[in-house]
Amino acid sequence: MAAEIVNPRSGSEAGTTQEAGAEPLESIEPAFALHRGGKMAVQATVPVRDKDDLSLAYTPGVAQVCSAIAEQPELVHDYTWKSSVVAVVTDGTAVLGLGDIGPEASLPVMEGKAILFKQFGGVDAVPIALACTDVDEIVETVVRLAPSFGGVNLEDISAPRCFEIERRLQERLDIPVFHDDQHGTAVVTLAALRNAARLSGRALGELRAVISGAGAAGVAIAKMLVEAGIGDVAVADRKGIVSADREDLTPVKRELAEFTNKAGLSGTLEAALKGADVFIGVSGGTVAEPAVASMADGAFVFAMANPNPEVHPEIAHKYAAVVATGRSDFPNQINNVLAFPGIFAGALQVRASRITEGMKLAAAEALASVVGDDLAADYVIPSPFDERVAPAVTAAVAAAARAEGVARR
Amino acid sequence: MAAEIVNPRSGSEAGTTQEAGAEPLESIEPAFALHRGGKMAVQATVPVRDKDDLSLAYTPGVAQVCSAIAEQPELVHDYTWKSSVVAVVTDGTAVLGLGDIGPEASLPVMEGKAILFKQFGGVDAVPIALACTDVDEIVETVVRLAPSFGGVNLEDISAPRCFEIERRLQERLDIPVFHDDQHGTAVVTLAALRNAARLSGRALGELRAVISGAGAAGVAIAKMLVEAGIGDVAVADRKGIVSADREDLTPVKRELAEFTNKAGLSGTLEAALKGADVFIGVSGGTVAEPAVASMADGAFVFAMANPNPEVHPEIAHKYAAVVATGRSDFPNQINNVLAFPGIFAGALQVRASRITEGMKLAAAEALASVVGDDLAADYVIPSPFDERVAPAVTAAVAAAARAEGVARR
Repeated sequence: MAAEIVNPRSGSEAGTTQEAGAEPLESIEPAFALHRGGKMAVQATVPVRDKDDLSLAYTPGVAQVCSAIAEQPELVHDYTWKSSVVAVVTDGTAVLGLGDIGPEASLPVMEGKAILFKQFGGVDAVPIALACTDVDEIVETVVRLAPSFGGVNLEDISAPRCFEIERRLQERLDIPVFHDDQHGTAVVTLAALRNAARLSGRALGELRAVISGAGAAGVAIAKMLVEAGIGDVAVADRKGIVSADREDLTPVKRELAEFTNKAGLSGTLEAALKGADVFIGVSGGTVAEPAVASMADGAFVFAMANPNPEVHPEIAHKYAAVVATGRSDFPNQINNVLAFPGIFAGALQVRASRITEGMKLAAAEALASVVGDDLAADYVIPSPFDERVAPAVTAAVAAAARAEGVARR
Repeated sequence: MAAEIVNPRSGSEAGTTQEAGAEPLESIEPAFALHRGGKMAVQATVPVRDKDDLSLAYTPGVAQVCSAIAEQPELVHDYTWKSSVVAVVTDGTAVLGLGDIGPEASLPVMEGKAILFKQFGGVDAVPIALACTDVDEIVETVVRLAPSFGGVNLEDISAPRCFEIERRLQERLDIPVFHDDQHGTAVVTLAALRNAARLSGRALGELRAVISGAGAAGVAIAKMLVEAGIGDVAVADRKGIVSADREDLTPVKRELAEFTNKAGLSGTLEAALKGADVFIGVSGGTVAEPAVASMADGAFVFAMANPNPEVHPEIAHKYAAVVATGRSDFPNQINNVLAFPGIFAGALQVRASRITEGMKLAAAEALASVVGDDLAADYVIPSPFDERVAPAVTAAVAAAARAEGVARR
């Protein structure tokens, strides 16, 4: 085969991109050298060495497989890669902390996500960065693409559009649709919180939490903590605690006000932190030291903003029993890669039609349980490179899908 | 990494698909066993072994790459897989000889196409089978997907919609859009015809050809032969020769009538074959032996219908100097895989904004030239497994793109 000779990524042409400024970037930053030509490729999993191979993998042999699927549609899961492949869909409107940078500029993140799916969950994934931001257009486009994929991972789509897009897609499709910025973050946060509570000998029902940030992650974390039985949770946006008496709430925040904030707090985030047991930061803002100091004894501080945590771990440690961040250079990294590969691997394994709340709760429990007897203040959540994580999450999610009646095998 | 443990394609779950009828199919036909789990996978091309790798390939390192692309959009070609990856897009309406079997049932063919792209051209390709057949919807959907891809290969979309879809997509997009059923077939046919003419010591301008079939392939072959300077070409559909005096012509066939059939033929295919130098079958019909016998001395018969050629090679050889088919079990197989991998590899290599007529003609010439001094009646076109093919086509297409001013590097 001539693959290496004509690979468009390599060869003598590469040098000609100098005029685009590539070389200087690569000499300044190692990330650019690593990203040259992208981070992923497609490979054949069957041989195509000779005409016999070709006549099985392509015409005429393939026609029998096509006819069988046309007659018995569920066979598409057996005889194509559909049940192994997830579309990583974005519109580029909320990429990392960079905001609305458009579809092309979001591709390096989507490729990164795709290779994490593969590396950690054995799931094939394809970046699909869309040149549209209208909710109807995104929904229609993904519905039209869906026959080729076993699942849809929504990524870096700005709130509140992300909520409606996910809801409508799940209604229209019979494959899992999962907005990782919401649910992946929520699953890992809950796992860390479960272990922090276990370490302190406390039940979730005793804890009062305050979440800074009412975007995709904040809303999903609030929902999941309530489902997991937390004592109370209040969510703050830039204008303060989300409460039913506020008149500036979006529909999503109005819904949030209905099932959070049993204590009826209003006012600033800092005020709400007084006596609180848990702080969860997914806002990118900062919390002043006196507010952290005002929390209850033995508090948990999960300051997950990247690259700058809402509370620096050094400050947090002065007052809190357990500290977690979103960064890999501190202990207890709340990292979505702990969840999404196993969640999709489990859902695909049993051909789940959706990812239910029960499956997410099961993922959080499985993730928490990996820590086991090694539980400590600086080890409430496993490392992304712990090889036990993805199999544990996969098995728990597959079992939960069966228990909830959404598995199709 | 846990990739093998949780790979959703394998493991103990596989046995549970028996109830879907999978096992019986596999015991009857080897193609089913080969297709189990699909034929392709995604792989990472950069390491993700530890947190240092992760911080370069994903956050925080990836953010710098995203920001650079946001500022300088053309860098997307340098630092993502965009310029290596082609979307293989279908709506499942004209799959092989099976017709309109829908998107899911078309997936085995699209995966097959994708692995041929990789194996023969080093081009990554992703199957995109769409759940819509409306021209406007297909065009809009592909335009929205386009940021993620370096090219679009349209596949198995029924005529005449395929013509309009290709034309409108090429107008809207700045990446190559190529309907392989049209142009791939035309390129390989022209290459074989060039060599057949060389073998007979005849110029293309001396030859009169008759094409059976006015679908995607027939229309494209007619256009390409006229561009290459053939003496005359007439195209027959089910109602006979396409001629300006017919009142039942679609817009595409009306256009065809304008630039073909200089001889002003009308009536049946068989009548037109009398004295013709070349027969090209892309119809799936059959041609009676007396009509073949009525062709000019030293005729060329390219009976490309699969699996049943319009004229069986044994019959054709009684009257024709050169015989070609679409089948791998006879000499001179007219197989698109000789063209599309190299055409896209060449176009992607120079980041061509489109695939021009000149690029297609260059591909045909390069493909014909591979045969060289070994030219013989049973060797007018190389084997798909000839390793010289893809590099020759790639280089010729890249050079032609530069010459035609559509290359962007």
